[in-house]
Amino acid sequence: MTTTLGNLYPGQSLIHFTGTYTDLYQLTMAQVYFLHGRQHDQATFDYFFRQLPFEGGYAVFAGLEDLLESLENLRFDPGDLAFLREQGFGAEFLHYLQDFRFTGTIYSVGEGDVVFPTRPILRVEANLIEAQIIETLALNILNFQTLIATKASRMRLVAGDCTLVDFGLRRAQGVGGYYASRAAMIGGFEGTSNVRVGRDFNTPVSGTMAHSFVQGYDDELVAFRDFAESRPDDCVLLVDTYNTLGSGIPNAIQVGKEMESRGQRLKGIRLDSGDLAYLSKKARQRLDEAGLNYVKIAVSNQLDEKLIKSLLQQEAPIDIFGVGTKLVIGYPDAALDGVYKLANINEKPRIKLSESIDKVTLPGKKQVYRMLNGDGSFMGADAVALADEKSHDIAVMHHPFDPLKSMTIRDCKKEPLLLKVMEHGKRTGSALTLQAIAAYSRQRLGKLPGEYKRFENPHLYKVGLSDQLKLERDQLIAQYQKRK
Amino acid sequence: MTTTLGNLYPGQSLIHFTGTYTDLYQLTMAQVYFLHGRQHDQATFDYFFRQLPFEGGYAVFAGLEDLLESLENLRFDPGDLAFLREQGFGAEFLHYLQDFRFTGTIYSVGEGDVVFPTRPILRVEANLIEAQIIETLALNILNFQTLIATKASRMRLVAGDCTLVDFGLRRAQGVGGYYASRAAMIGGFEGTSNVRVGRDFNTPVSGTMAHSFVQGYDDELVAFRDFAESRPDDCVLLVDTYNTLGSGIPNAIQVGKEMESRGQRLKGIRLDSGDLAYLSKKARQRLDEAGLNYVKIAVSNQLDEKLIKSLLQQEAPIDIFGVGTKLVIGYPDAALDGVYKLANINEKPRIKLSESIDKVTLPGKKQVYRMLNGDGSFMGADAVALADEKSHDIAVMHHPFDPLKSMTIRDCKKEPLLLKVMEHGKRTGSALTLQAIAAYSRQRLGKLPGEYKRFENPHLYKVGLSDQLKLERDQLIAQYQKRK
Repeated sequence: MTTTLGNLYPGQSLIHFTGTYTDLYQLTMAQVYFLHGRQHDQATFDYFFRQLPFEGGYAVFAGLEDLLESLENLRFDPGDLAFLREQGFGAEFLHYLQDFRFTGTIYSVGEGDVVFPTRPILRVEANLIEAQIIETLALNILNFQTLIATKASRMRLVAGDCTLVDFGLRRAQGVGGYYASRAAMIGGFEGTSNVRVGRDFNTPVSGTMAHSFVQGYDDELVAFRDFAESRPDDCVLLVDTYNTLGSGIPNAIQVGKEMESRGQRLKGIRLDSGDLAYLSKKARQRLDEAGLNYVKIAVSNQLDEKLIKSLLQQEAPIDIFGVGTKLVIGYPDAALDGVYKLANINEKPRIKLSESIDKVTLPGKKQVYRMLNGDGSFMGADAVALADEKSHDIAVMHHPFDPLKSMTIRDCKKEPLLLKVMEHGKRTGSALTLQAIAAYSRQRLGKLPGEYKRFENPHLYKVGLSDQLKLERDQLIAQYQKRK
Repeated sequence: MTTTLGNLYPGQSLIHFTGTYTDLYQLTMAQVYFLHGRQHDQATFDYFFRQLPFEGGYAVFAGLEDLLESLENLRFDPGDLAFLREQGFGAEFLHYLQDFRFTGTIYSVGEGDVVFPTRPILRVEANLIEAQIIETLALNILNFQTLIATKASRMRLVAGDCTLVDFGLRRAQGVGGYYASRAAMIGGFEGTSNVRVGRDFNTPVSGTMAHSFVQGYDDELVAFRDFAESRPDDCVLLVDTYNTLGSGIPNAIQVGKEMESRGQRLKGIRLDSGDLAYLSKKARQRLDEAGLNYVKIAVSNQLDEKLIKSLLQQEAPIDIFGVGTKLVIGYPDAALDGVYKLANINEKPRIKLSESIDKVTLPGKKQVYRMLNGDGSFMGADAVALADEKSHDIAVMHHPFDPLKSMTIRDCKKEPLLLKVMEHGKRTGSALTLQAIAAYSRQRLGKLPGEYKRFENPHLYKVGLSDQLKLERDQLIAQYQKRK
């Protein structure tokens, strides 16, 4: 249940979620609801985040297919039920959990789309118990993959025509590395070293040689020769085990020439330490002098989007960037602050107040509209409205917190972002491949003007509320404040 | 295969590692070794890290039991083999992988012990292919759990008698959250909200109510009453959904008094926003005035060790800290830089050189000795020696990089840290429970003097090399430098 491709290959999935993959309070609350017959109450929850990661101007939404697949298969297995019984949950509720299926409806932004704070990205409509029980799973999957797809996208933006490959599994946060590699592909990476991700998501896998391989021989040249003989079609030699310019590159050139004499071609060399700008220039020069201008240069070692940008600005002749830790952990933020908030119950809007106005939630069942320019590119504003409003009736969007600011959007082309992706617990369409999601993400990012993509003080993508939504929110605030 | 407790509860494990949970280059190199008959070569690899996380003075080693369990069960399943076949791996090597078992020997520091940079924490002795194939899995498990156990330990140090509970799953790095919760228990947490971790590791689970529960009612008081009726023995009321002092605490007090009249006791209230020092003092005062001095105060909201310390220094009357994001992602570092380096092949020592002397590896099969004071506490120095040296012969330890610095340790009590935990691919003893590991960690941390535990400029725990190890390393450096 971790692949969205069905069973490409036989065998057990890496991850098998069951109902106890959640916070205890979801089950505690669910039991109270159950004992009060509230499995018949219909609830709406919104998933959204409050702050863009990496001080950037956008995020890339990821994790949706994994969430839908997980929800279709979510069960409480015998071990879950036995443990919960020991924790004091009652027999009737456990019986309910034994037959638990998620049967709700989900509207969502398309996976891979660019998204912004405050407005709903995903809307869950289900009975109160089901909607509550899936909260932790949804947040766990969506927060992390969105963080990593966004990080990867930033690297893709600066890497030009260079190939980006994820090497992060060893420093990933445990099995989090699996979803990190998936999300990196959505954000624009071309491949991963993570073989299991290749198997499950049909992505290119790459990687050839570690320092230990070279150390495992008495002689670097012999190590390179053995490797080239065994892998003539995919030979990338790691040249910095002992001395990059003194031995690594000369030995690689010698093996490259020997391969030529056998009608083969050395694919590349890799630099994993030292001054990558200086060494890549020296390496390119020596390879070219030896007639090996087709040999590619790969680099790795603590790269991030800023280092990649800097290397390319220095005109370092690099073809492939291998990116590890800072990609797969989403450094330096390492978490997205996404939340899952109740918006209504039985069609009655609900709100969560807060001392800070920007943490007050938006009540009711909502739709998000993206304003488009004539050429289909993004105008720089999303409007949040009640789901039953007609888009052509939405004439103004109000600043969510500043009552003096508003924007006329009557004549704007408005694209609804939340589309139905699950109904009665089943996907409405077939699962999308990772490749299709990545292509969609590229297309959507292409519609986002450059000022929202820059790293330094990116332009603020506006959000506004429709008249009706604003009225509803303000009435609810007043109503709760009166009760104090 | 994710629990170290056997099958406490029936059902499938959350995570099921197979051979492709690795970087491609491990398999690429392994095939080259295989084609050259090097499955008969014996290799030794060391796991160690170079930098302490969180600018701290120590780390807590975690993940060992999961690694051993995973290695005992590591197989290439039919899906792995089918995928690798498509990737061009040869039939003979695939046949070898089909029967792959890890049959090596592992020496390790005890899980939960305090550890320091540079010196080996775990030593793998296996044939070259097996030792290489497990690298990524070992790093993936050990790096992350050590990071989180260390973070948790820092919180435990400042939390005094307060209870620490992990609430982090929703913001964790995907399934990384599972191991994060496990590691937090090793570092000194008393419980987790993560139900699956409770099921698999027999830990206390906790959590009662979210804001959505209160929002799900028209009236906060009714929400509290319903909850108290359904969970009279474990009722913690979340008091900040609308107005903490204005409605949340008064309503909680009212429900607390109603519970008293039924012979029950309100267990606690929780504050999740606002000024936690101010609000907890106000809450304590009002609860006490109402005769509810037994009601505990729990707090949450972006806590870390510095905030916990600050709250307790302000004498905030807090009983329970619920810690989320910053614990489970190991903020701000979010990764430990642990590596796995070749130390010898067929008893011949190996080295990896580097432009920076502190990245040069230590060659040969090694043991680490911890110097002890007369009372068994740690002296503040570990010595690294060759494994076949007798501890009483080790008279001096040399600074690893500064040839002018050394320390006489002839008469010190020396405790060997690397003990055999796996032989021929099987654990040498029975699996340790998480509770036993956590108790061991507490005991070991108790032997570490306070100056290594402080947050600001902690004292440096020394490391030194024995005469023989230093000689071996220096000879190898000279030998490779001559070759340039």
